[in-house]
Order: sequence, then C-alpha cells, then structure tokens
Amino acid sequence: MRVIVLGGDGYLGWPTAMHFSKQGHEVMIVDNLAKRYWEAEVGVEPLVHIRSLQGRVKCWYAETGKNIDFHIFDISDNHRYLYRVFEGFKPDTIIHYAEQPSAPFSMADRGKCVETQRNNVLGTLNVLFAMRYSCPEAHIVKLGTMGEYGTPNIDIEEGWLDIEHNGRKDRMLFPKKPGSFYHLSKVHDSHNLEFACRIWGVRVTDLNQGVVYGIDTDDTLRHPELITSFHYDAVFGTVLNRFVVQAVVGEALSVFGSGKQTRGYLNIRDTLSCVELAAKNPAEPGEFRVFNQFTEQFSVQQLADRVKAIGDRRGFNVEIDHIENPRVEMEDHYYNAKHSKLMDLGLEPHLLTDEVIEGMMDVVSRHKDRVYRDLLLPDIQWRVPSPSRD
Amino acid sequence: MRVIVLGGDGYLGWPTAMHFSKQGHEVMIVDNLAKRYWEAEVGVEPLVHIRSLQGRVKCWYAETGKNIDFHIFDISDNHRYLYRVFEGFKPDTIIHYAEQPSAPFSMADRGKCVETQRNNVLGTLNVLFAMRYSCPEAHIVKLGTMGEYGTPNIDIEEGWLDIEHNGRKDRMLFPKKPGSFYHLSKVHDSHNLEFACRIWGVRVTDLNQGVVYGIDTDDTLRHPELITSFHYDAVFGTVLNRFVVQAVVGEALSVFGSGKQTRGYLNIRDTLSCVELAAKNPAEPGEFRVFNQFTEQFSVQQLADRVKAIGDRRGFNVEIDHIENPRVEMEDHYYNAKHSKLMDLGLEPHLLTDEVIEGMMDVVSRHKDRVYRDLLLPDIQWRVPSPSRD
Repeated sequence: MRVIVLGGDGYLGWPTAMHFSKQGHEVMIVDNLAKRYWEAEVGVEPLVHIRSLQGRVKCWYAETGKNIDFHIFDISDNHRYLYRVFEGFKPDTIIHYAEQPSAPFSMADRGKCVETQRNNVLGTLNVLFAMRYSCPEAHIVKLGTMGEYGTPNIDIEEGWLDIEHNGRKDRMLFPKKPGSFYHLSKVHDSHNLEFACRIWGVRVTDLNQGVVYGIDTDDTLRHPELITSFHYDAVFGTVLNRFVVQAVVGEALSVFGSGKQTRGYLNIRDTLSCVELAAKNPAEPGEFRVFNQFTEQFSVQQLADRVKAIGDRRGFNVEIDHIENPRVEMEDHYYNAKHSKLMDLGLEPHLLTDEVIEGMMDVVSRHKDRVYRDLLLPDIQWRVPSPSRD
Repeated sequence: MRVIVLGGDGYLGWPTAMHFSKQGHEVMIVDNLAKRYWEAEVGVEPLVHIRSLQGRVKCWYAETGKNIDFHIFDISDNHRYLYRVFEGFKPDTIIHYAEQPSAPFSMADRGKCVETQRNNVLGTLNVLFAMRYSCPEAHIVKLGTMGEYGTPNIDIEEGWLDIEHNGRKDRMLFPKKPGSFYHLSKVHDSHNLEFACRIWGVRVTDLNQGVVYGIDTDDTLRHPELITSFHYDAVFGTVLNRFVVQAVVGEALSVFGSGKQTRGYLNIRDTLSCVELAAKNPAEPGEFRVFNQFTEQFSVQQLADRVKAIGDRRGFNVEIDHIENPRVEMEDHYYNAKHSKLMDLGLEPHLLTDEVIEGMMDVVSRHKDRVYRDLLLPDIQWRVPSPSRD
C-alpha cells in the first residue's frame, strides 16, 4: 500500500508512519511542523525531548533499513505543492491528522479560534480537491473526534442515525453538539467530507476518536530518538496522561468540576490498529463511513480514582482536587456511545489495565525532572475569551 | 434601534439598510465590496447598473434627509477594524449578510470553494468575538439558508428536532445535508453560532431563508440610484429571476433535470419584513433561535409553468427546456418545511401572484438590452470541478 500521513510529525502521526513503514508499505509524511510552533506559542513542551522530523526519519532508517520520505509544507496554504505530492506519490491511502488538535488552544482567544478552523477546515478542503484531481481512487482516513457528538441524551450511533418523525423515516447524519471551536472544526470537516462523497464518489472513513492515552508503541520503544510527543500540560495533554504526571510529581490530580463527565478512551496502540484496519478495509466509492474509535468509557472521576489507587500503592500519596470547570459542558449526563464497527473488523483492544497505568508511571518517573508544574492547571476559560482584541 | 448591516452593499443588504433607516433607526453599513469583485471574477453583472455604495448613500440622504454611515473593509480579514466599529457604534442589532452567496460560485473550483468557506466561516467567527468583546448584549440576525437542510425524507422543522431513539429523547439541532460548499459554509456558521450562544450567552437568530425573488422594494423605487442588484446569470441569479429574464428576451427557460425539485421561496419584500420582525423581537440571551424564512413552496417546474403562462399571455411565446442538471441533488423527493414562527410574529406575506411576475417582467422589459444571453446557462458542474490546479 502507498500511504501518505498528513501530520506525520505529531503524537499520533509519527507512530502511525512507523507502523505502516514497518509492515513494508510505502510511507510518505507531510507536515508543516505547526504543532511545534503552537507549543511554543502557548509555552509548553512535551515531557521528553523530541528529535526533528529529519532526525526521526534518519533514525528509523538506521534501525529498520526502511525509508520514510517527507515534505515540509502547509496543506492549508500551499495547495499546489499538495496537488504535486499526490500526483507524484499516488497514494492508496491518505491518513489525515494534519489538524490543530487541542480544544483549549482553540478557546484561548479569537486568533487561535480562527487559526484552528482555518487550518483544519481549509486544509481538509485542499486535501479533497487535490485528491479529486490527482488520485481520485484513494481512500481518505480522517481523524475526527467523539467530541463532535457532545453528550446527547440518546445513544450515540456511529455517524448516522435512523430518524422517524411525524410518521416518516430517513437515515441522517447524527446531530452534532460539540464543546469547543476545535471540536466544531471537526464537525465542519465531517460535513464537507460527506458532501464530497456524495458529489464526487470519493471514499472517506471518518474516525471519531475518543480520548487517547499512552506513551509507547512497539516502534517508539526501538530507540530513544523514535519516541512520540507526550503532553501533560493543560493545553495539549489529555486527561489520563496529565493525571499520571500529576501523581508522579506529587501534584493533586485536577478534576474539572464534579468529574462525572464520561467519554470514550483508547490506548495509543489501538489508534494504530484502528487506522490500519480502516486503511486495509477501505470505504466504498461514494461512501462516507464513520467509526467511533474508542474501546472503553470512563468518567473523569473513575480515571482519577484509578490513578490514585495505583499511585498510592507505589507510595506517591496521591490527592484529588476538584477545580472549577474551565469548560462549558454537562457534568451529569447520559453517555452510551456505540463502537462495534472496528471490533467487527477485528480490533483487539488494549484495555486500561493497572499494568498500563503503571507502565506510564514508570516512563514519567524517569523523566520527572522535565515536568514544569506551572503547566498542569488550565488557564483558558471557555466562558471568557482573552480580553485582547487580537 | 442601532442597526449595523454587514454586507450592506448587497442584493438584500442595501434594501435592508434603507428599510431600517427609513423608520428612524440609526443604520451603519459594513461591506468590503467583495460581491462586486466576485461578479467581475466570473464575468457577470447585474441587470441594471448599480451605483457605488458612496453614491447610494448620498442619494438616500438627498431623498430622505437620513444618513447611513458606512465602513469599507473585510470583516473576515480585518478583525481589529470590526472590534473598533462595534465599540464605537454599539449596535443593538447586527444583521449579518456579509457572505459569499452563490452555490455555483462555491462549486467552480478549489479556489472559490476555499474562498467561500474562508470568507463566510471565519468572518462569522470574527463577528462573534468582536461582539463578545465590544457589545455582548447585541442581537445577531444571521442570514442562513433553507438549503442547509437539503431534502430530507421527513418534515423540516425550524432548526431543532425532538428525537426519540432507543426509548430516550433529546432536542437536537436538525441534521443537515446541504448541497454545495456554499450551503455547507452556512451549516458551519450555524454550528459555530449555536455554540457561542451556549458558552457566552449571546443572542442569535439564524434565518434559514428560502430562495428570494423580486426586484423592487418601496425604497428602491424612490430613485433610480437606489435600486438593488438584480442578477439573472447562472452564478448569482436565483431561479425565478432568471426565468423571468429568459421569458422576456425569448430564451427557453432552463429547468435543471426533471424540475421536480421543490424549495421554499419568498419575495424580497418579505426578507425585509422578516429581518425586521427578528430584530424587533430579539432572541433571549443564550438562545440560538432558528426561523425558516420563506412563504411558499414551489417546484422548479411549477415556476417555469407559471412564467410560461404569463409570458405567453404577453406574447413572449415562452419555451421550457429541460437541461442536464449541473447539480447533484435529488429531483424526486419529499419536501415539507415548517415556517410558522415568523407568521406567529406577524409576517404578512407577499405571495407570488401573477401581478408580481408581471411586475418583474415590466422591469426586465425596460432593461432587456442589458441582458447578455451567454450568462443564462450554467457552466459549473457539481460533479466535475475545474481541471485547473489553482
């Protein structure tokens, strides 16, 4: 398979590129390194230092003898380059991670909100047009988010919903009520992608992914220069990753509000399996296929309790703080999201065992000197955008 | 009332500005004149020459003694100016028409698709942030479109839908399945606006407007320099306006496909009444209110038959051509869209009587020398974007 990974320098993109390369697929990375800039813009950095993309690719070649070609440019801004790359590489699968991935970042101020929707929505439009022109048979595997759905009072289906109303029926896109300008950008993408399937007959799989946790994959463990970017900060760090770091460094776990907020979660290893299953079982021409990509549901409180129990056993003496919720979200809500389609394709989940959390604690413990405690608590408020006019 | 009209140089924006000014409201126009550029870009022009915005405003003052202040700048690109204008003017009502309004334009090629979503989506985000900062109590009256819904097999409600699924219930945004990148931009706007209501408690009325027809309002008739831009071309011209022009100049009415496509329609005079009703009865703080803004449903064939019957009576000898549908849309479909909320507020519709069509024919007949026949038929194909890589 010829696989192009847009956003291949990121937390999920880099392990994905290695995962496909290892199996003998031709892999190309496109990335504009925007994430490294956004980190600098909000003053955070990954727990462990990340080599340059150039260095990672060299290390991968030294380790495996396999080459990953790459191009550094902005797909949202330089569409001509994108058309040319697609024409030259002729990908079978386009894995599209090239988006601003943080909800708090998108809520910080007007500039970051607009930059998130500009980058994500217009970038995806460019991918669609370039594909239509250069490789219309390719299959787009697009990373969406479970956060597109919000927390409806009904079961969350996988993308589509059979609706009966006043005695008539239709199969419709599941109504979305997302919780940030970032999540909204993914909703906009989904609508644009579904339309492209309808008018051009292109193939799209939209992976509505839950919250990812984890540090290592088989490939990141091969060499220290192959690790992926693990964030514990309040802007780019996901909740379980942050709790593990807080436990290890002796800071209280910061639960937003009651902690009853429930979401779908998955191990970073399962992200790779899911993307691989989607790529190997492509959508049909004209099909807008949606998978809910997570393996287990937890409330934030449940995660905090798990981390505290394991941390206490290791002598960390973990405290749990309930801080004022910086987000606008329901804390007491129904949540039952379907996620059988990837299981039907053969996904074998890595569930959140105590060993998984202990393994994360081991890694964090080795790097605890690099944790900046001032980055752990949120300073972006959903209700109050920055008072600046920029 | 202090009313700001974003896009106040347009087909609907200019009559709206006059309509509020006439009643003694303080009116300010913001427009970047992009529509005049987009017309040039695709090589079309309104049936009757339109004066500059500066000239229109001078003429309005000469006619009525009322001043309409205006600022020419791009709200999608120059947010600092927008913040300053809102701060200085302190509008009670922000009427937002400042969007690229054509479905075919958005489907012409990658550049026009991206420009449509960039202008519309990012412009609306800037309006939200500027309002939140400078005049958070203001009421946004946003022009959406009935085309956001597509043609579902169930009744179309006004923005929200009560859904029952697996024995549980929720009130959700009505699922959208729009038919062009333009219509998609309005769907994205609606999602962004609903979210802003939720997190900031702002007031928004989203007017999902049907297809507008008509040339004159009471105010455009006061002076030839006060007319609004009437388009008959295949890019910016709406279907009834185009049929009337085709009938008058002896070209066959171009029905796309079977002509069974059914939509909601309204007279331009009712657009003004609806916007006025929305402005005078604002949404509550935090309320995302949606009105379906049309007065009658017609199929394209019904409109063609009406125009032919009236045209034939006047001796135009009208023919009807069924041309290959350049769009991707259902031609045989259920369509029943609710539209009672504006009626409940007191809307008295101007229905599509024979006299209305005859009145349009009178105006077009006076200007028939300015009709360029090569602009009447569509040359933008939904299924095939431009082969250019630009």
